[in-house]
Amino acid sequence: MSDTPTSAAGVFTRNQIQAAPVVLDLERIASGISQALIVNSGVANCCTGKPGMQDAVAMSRMTADSLRIIPDQVLVASTGVIGPRLPMAKIESAIPKLVAEARPTGFVDFAEAIMTTDTVPKLVTRQALLKGAPFTVTGVAKGSGMIHPDMATMLAFICTDMGATAQQLQRILTAGVNDTLNKITIDGDTSTNDTTLIFANGRSGVDLQSPKDAALFNEVVREVLGELAQLLVEDGEGATKRVRIIVKGARSEASAHVVANTIAKSALVKTALFGEDANWGRVVAAVGREGVPIEPEKLKLFFGDILVFANGCGTDDANGKQVSSVLQQPRFTITMDLGLGSAEVSVYTCDLSVAYVRINADYRS
Amino acid sequence: MSDTPTSAAGVFTRNQIQAAPVVLDLERIASGISQALIVNSGVANCCTGKPGMQDAVAMSRMTADSLRIIPDQVLVASTGVIGPRLPMAKIESAIPKLVAEARPTGFVDFAEAIMTTDTVPKLVTRQALLKGAPFTVTGVAKGSGMIHPDMATMLAFICTDMGATAQQLQRILTAGVNDTLNKITIDGDTSTNDTTLIFANGRSGVDLQSPKDAALFNEVVREVLGELAQLLVEDGEGATKRVRIIVKGARSEASAHVVANTIAKSALVKTALFGEDANWGRVVAAVGREGVPIEPEKLKLFFGDILVFANGCGTDDANGKQVSSVLQQPRFTITMDLGLGSAEVSVYTCDLSVAYVRINADYRS
Repeated sequence: MSDTPTSAAGVFTRNQIQAAPVVLDLERIASGISQALIVNSGVANCCTGKPGMQDAVAMSRMTADSLRIIPDQVLVASTGVIGPRLPMAKIESAIPKLVAEARPTGFVDFAEAIMTTDTVPKLVTRQALLKGAPFTVTGVAKGSGMIHPDMATMLAFICTDMGATAQQLQRILTAGVNDTLNKITIDGDTSTNDTTLIFANGRSGVDLQSPKDAALFNEVVREVLGELAQLLVEDGEGATKRVRIIVKGARSEASAHVVANTIAKSALVKTALFGEDANWGRVVAAVGREGVPIEPEKLKLFFGDILVFANGCGTDDANGKQVSSVLQQPRFTITMDLGLGSAEVSVYTCDLSVAYVRINADYRS
Repeated sequence: MSDTPTSAAGVFTRNQIQAAPVVLDLERIASGISQALIVNSGVANCCTGKPGMQDAVAMSRMTADSLRIIPDQVLVASTGVIGPRLPMAKIESAIPKLVAEARPTGFVDFAEAIMTTDTVPKLVTRQALLKGAPFTVTGVAKGSGMIHPDMATMLAFICTDMGATAQQLQRILTAGVNDTLNKITIDGDTSTNDTTLIFANGRSGVDLQSPKDAALFNEVVREVLGELAQLLVEDGEGATKRVRIIVKGARSEASAHVVANTIAKSALVKTALFGEDANWGRVVAAVGREGVPIEPEKLKLFFGDILVFANGCGTDDANGKQVSSVLQQPRFTITMDLGLGSAEVSVYTCDLSVAYVRINADYRS
């Protein structure tokens, strides 16, 4: 919650199956004004029909009542299992306590409270100066599985004391999400509850008056979003590696993104990453299968800085010790140069481990 | 090999990265005539450049020399790791022995010899009568991972003593593959070596003279292809379940196929199958994410015969014992009725298990 109403903007899942809180927030965020956010984890409140929508509304009303603010200015987010109803009695008894304990430094508790299969809370704060006045951008996110955002991600919330209009926030958030949260994948499954919200209450005393101001603020927000995106991948369900897939030399950004996503989502590439196996053939095969026209002879593939594939064949270095040591790192880069143009996209992915399967086989039990 | 030249036709991977044997066979099959096939497993002879193509040609020439037939009438197939060169000395010394031991009943040995991560050989034989004369169709396939065929599958070979022209064979094979091998997925990765070949040497004494003859023969071939497709899924890497995904009530067959594939490929659906968890929310979420327009309220989802989702919500039966017992079966059906039209497609998939990850993390070591 904010002491005063804030400008607010959001980006939501493009999945056609949308959870009740997503539908409710889409409606409420249209006003561009919000003052509080209530989030639960464990139950997604998705595929719950009219009763689910009533639960979401009730959850916001209870929060508004406790805070003595307008219910329409409370946003709601849920994450967890699809299908079951929210435990409303539990929520009702918890809200007054949450409100009583709310404080400016509560972000860490919040980040912990919204975790599901996450193993670490995800919290990023940046401070910067605008016209000599300091402002802060703080972001919190959760998400570990069902992560293949499409115009949004799992749950991510950005709060700032910058002064900005809802329109300014929306523009900055949409562009920023597209370059960060929309460029990660954990398992290729797009959630029904993806929600990213930004709140700006203007408490810093500065606001965005010129395009230059907006550019500075934009940069800080993007840094926070980028950092959160990387934290999400690093904490991907069962993940032991965070791998950046760069596709360059593409004819268009769209085709680069398709190729990068195909590599990033391939079960065979992801299991090879888990096995620390420089199996470049699987990367090359993935590039060939998704329908973006390529010229096999022009492809150049690098693991880290080491060229492993060129002129249609593996290189002498492809099976060397240097490549093995790249694969053993917890973070590294795979670069595919298509040799056709100048467009470039990078996507973050993680490996597919035995633990991922275990987590998701046992998720509801 | 066949005692006499046969009519022959083939369907090959649409992956733009094609192994040397695929490129060679595409060239040679144009003649519509073939007499022998040589296959190796362990090395895919893919991304091996000109030397790899020379190896494929040499492998066919050695086989032709031993058999005293024309090299152009020998087809070649390889399966295994992408990148390394074929062990030509080993192949050269093995071929004369293979030729000396070739016999009509050698199909079982052949099916065993071409296995990689397969755990069982895949061999299907059907006999039928045409105008009172018996003819036989025998199919052999291999494939366990990197299975998401696109206009072909991993390796599958059909031999028949029916008399047929190459054109007749091509028509029957292309349509048959589309309904069978192209409707399975194990891990969503399309191989670089996918090859399906059919050989017909006419030894039965009957041939396809009328459309009615072709229809009968077509049915037998399709049965063999369908059976092979199911054997492949059942022996999917690490698979413990074979699940048929039926999507019906679609506006077009193409959109039904997209939806069925999205369910069949979802890591979250496949891990839930492994966990024997009737997590219908993951199926519904998968349907919503792939861009085919749906109306959530119209969806009906069945596990086996049990309705688990309708009118936008889970049903009372969704968490019952009956559903659990369906999920515990080694084979069952998931049916998604989109409620929009009359098109229907079914696809076979398997679960994603801990063993799949282990097999593919350690594949090259």
